[in-house]
Amino acid sequence: MSRFVPSLQLLPRVLAGEVPAIARLLSRAEAGLPECREALARAYERAGKAHVIGITGVPGSGKSTLVAVLVARLRGAGHKVGIIAVDPSSPWSGGSIMGDRIRMSDLASDQGVFIRSMATRGAVGGVARATLDAVDVLDAAGFQDVIVETVGVGQDEVEIAHASHTTVVVSAPGLGDDVQAIKAGILEIADVHVVSKCDRPDAGRTLADLEAMLALGSSLAARPEWQPPVVATSSVTGAGVEDLAAALARHKAHLDGSEAGRLRARRIAEFRILKHAEDLLRRRFRERHAGRVDALADRLLARRISPHAAGEELLDGAATGS
Amino acid sequence: MSRFVPSLQLLPRVLAGEVPAIARLLSRAEAGLPECREALARAYERAGKAHVIGITGVPGSGKSTLVAVLVARLRGAGHKVGIIAVDPSSPWSGGSIMGDRIRMSDLASDQGVFIRSMATRGAVGGVARATLDAVDVLDAAGFQDVIVETVGVGQDEVEIAHASHTTVVVSAPGLGDDVQAIKAGILEIADVHVVSKCDRPDAGRTLADLEAMLALGSSLAARPEWQPPVVATSSVTGAGVEDLAAALARHKAHLDGSEAGRLRARRIAEFRILKHAEDLLRRRFRERHAGRVDALADRLLARRISPHAAGEELLDGAATGS
Repeated sequence: MSRFVPSLQLLPRVLAGEVPAIARLLSRAEAGLPECREALARAYERAGKAHVIGITGVPGSGKSTLVAVLVARLRGAGHKVGIIAVDPSSPWSGGSIMGDRIRMSDLASDQGVFIRSMATRGAVGGVARATLDAVDVLDAAGFQDVIVETVGVGQDEVEIAHASHTTVVVSAPGLGDDVQAIKAGILEIADVHVVSKCDRPDAGRTLADLEAMLALGSSLAARPEWQPPVVATSSVTGAGVEDLAAALARHKAHLDGSEAGRLRARRIAEFRILKHAEDLLRRRFRERHAGRVDALADRLLARRISPHAAGEELLDGAATGS
Repeated sequence: MSRFVPSLQLLPRVLAGEVPAIARLLSRAEAGLPECREALARAYERAGKAHVIGITGVPGSGKSTLVAVLVARLRGAGHKVGIIAVDPSSPWSGGSIMGDRIRMSDLASDQGVFIRSMATRGAVGGVARATLDAVDVLDAAGFQDVIVETVGVGQDEVEIAHASHTTVVVSAPGLGDDVQAIKAGILEIADVHVVSKCDRPDAGRTLADLEAMLALGSSLAARPEWQPPVVATSSVTGAGVEDLAAALARHKAHLDGSEAGRLRARRIAEFRILKHAEDLLRRRFRERHAGRVDALADRLLARRISPHAAGEELLDGAATGS
């Protein structure tokens, strides 16, 4: 369609917050094009100002609707907000949520909101690597809040939501037992808990159950400096959205300049380094070492080498480039 | 509790199918203990006979109940069956499913059935690596069928279900829109489709919708040699279980000795090599390179290096062991 503009040439427009330039750079980052690496490195240098908020919850917890309501609230405070949705069930790729009440097109036509839906499968390289590169770009482009929404099932997906400054775990009334069981596994990563759909009559029970689970857990958890609050919200009545915004601001203030914030940043940095190394490993596996991989696979299929030993040979060869 | 028996010493008992020995070796494999690597390599040499069946579906699709019914059917044919559940919502770790109808304890007390629930988070190393090592052990121990059940959400979880000889994707009536949207993303990996809960009045609609989606997709898919069948089952009435067992046997026969089977085995082998290499990378990252990681994280946090360049340094250093 349009002429190919090198990523480094796009960068000034990205840093100025121009949406078309941002969209193009993000597409290249998601595709893992080597051409955009230098631009991503420059964006990373400029990043570090945004509040990165991970929002996760099981399917049906209403997290996309919550995100929409939260974004409207943050926009009201004058913030530019970026949204990266890593969720095959997310409605962000088009259409409306909550019928006529909140139309995605309202947000999508707002120049202060940038929405990006990331593929969870088939992405070149890991989705964690690609998502966090996208966070850098939006951060460097001047978005004060960057929201990363992931489905709260799956190892990668949960880790991505946790690789943020503030992680919000969304629960909701009326979900099945098996979904509730999945939920139990992600509660521990929450800095802020939300129980959504609190206009429903059965929400009180969900709130009470959550409080009980947290009371059990808090005797074990050694986080005296931050007790994750529980916020009850309703996207229908708008209840709790102010409380959620306040809880996010309080958690951000808790991290700013503190030891907790320093440890959090370090954990995210280590996660990113590992994810980039894994991405490179996969890439070299596919691109540079096709012949070696074939030979290793042959030996593995003939049961002349174990999977572990084959993995070791691959890793050692992938790095030296032999 | 009991004396530590080296894994190589356990191996003859594992190969003889002794359940306590199998359980101990699997625990060590899951923990990624270097001590058990040689035993796993020997188990891998002996493996390759079992039919590995991946069963996946969104939460609420009734896949655990389906597995229980299928296992009862396979046991009726005299097969020893291993089950590895990679699903935080799986009931296999205890309790009953379907109330009194099928009690896990019935299967659990059957020496011809081995059930293992794998942690999806917090496992040392990747869950894909650990799960496929466990498949080898059960295969080498003489289980004719090894069923790997995963929740059909999450990149790793879906890939694990697909790293099998026959992948079954379970759909069900009565699930929410967002769950259905997730389902759409996993249909493409199915060798056999199951629509469970077909005793429900709304099951006909689910079946029709699935057939319509598949008809759309099949014009694009280039798999003339195998058209994934759709099997309607009910764990309440037992309907369709024979059809499912027949479809599994037919797909196994389709792979045996064919080019399709050869390509499938090669894809699984390549996946395993990559997952072992990733596992090693993570391990070396944590264990051998703590100092290097600290230094890289410091530089990353100071924005003196990009995440990509830090990942590259880690990968190259991890392999050479420097």
